[in-house]
Amino acid sequence: MGKNGINDEYVIIVGCGRLGAHLANALFESGKSVVIIDMKPSAFRRLVEGFGGFALEADATELDTLKKAGIENADVFAAITDDDNTNIMLAQIAKTIYGVRKVIARVYEPNRQNVYEELEIKTICPMTLSAEAFKDSIENDEGGD
Amino acid sequence: MGKNGINDEYVIIVGCGRLGAHLANALFESGKSVVIIDMKPSAFRRLVEGFGGFALEADATELDTLKKAGIENADVFAAITDDDNTNIMLAQIAKTIYGVRKVIARVYEPNRQNVYEELEIKTICPMTLSAEAFKDSIENDEGGD
Repeated sequence: MGKNGINDEYVIIVGCGRLGAHLANALFESGKSVVIIDMKPSAFRRLVEGFGGFALEADATELDTLKKAGIENADVFAAITDDDNTNIMLAQIAKTIYGVRKVIARVYEPNRQNVYEELEIKTICPMTLSAEAFKDSIENDEGGD
Repeated sequence: MGKNGINDEYVIIVGCGRLGAHLANALFESGKSVVIIDMKPSAFRRLVEGFGGFALEADATELDTLKKAGIENADVFAAITDDDNTNIMLAQIAKTIYGVRKVIARVYEPNRQNVYEELEIKTICPMTLSAEAFKDSIENDEGGD
């Protein structure tokens, strides 16, 4: 349930790359209110036709952008730019300044995950997930045949 | 169990980027025989000190390289370069020419996963795994707090 009423969870995603756009499309289709922010207008081509969320072409590291995106009412904030430092900064702002309840950031460099944990930010590291999946595949005897 | 005896699974990894190196280190530490191939000598800096696998600086798309890596005896072949086309080609060679039992490839572009399935190659897509993890985090009410 969102702050805004029944089941209308309000999600802000920063970064409309492959993952950000995929999530925006999926969350929109599952009925959530989605705002996706990217500085590059070309990034939004990844959104599905008929995407009914809000695509905001702006620099999310400016507080005005986050306000415009409605961060004060956001239930979920996902920082998915291609830069770990930007993601950690955005996640911190969302968590500490705006008190967003669920803050999730992508990190490419897993060594930094402990920093995020201290800040109570949930991190998702594609490399770690992929490594686990590879190890499962290798150790699981079903293999490719 | 490897082809070579008791429990000495023989793993070839192509691509010593963040994920390839992480896997090479982890598999070596779990007692597997590991050969890791990369064209760029600087890539091998990611291997742990004391890495006891074999680091082969060569172009894996040349059959000679794969032979030198011992592909004829490999139990597992993992194609983890940063290029989907290279990975699919390498995985096909490992599967169809050398009959490697477990062939796994990383794909950045999930649209291609059906191609791999037809070829009976196991694929791992970091984006898909990350999207699932994000969706789990968002839907799971524990959140970041």
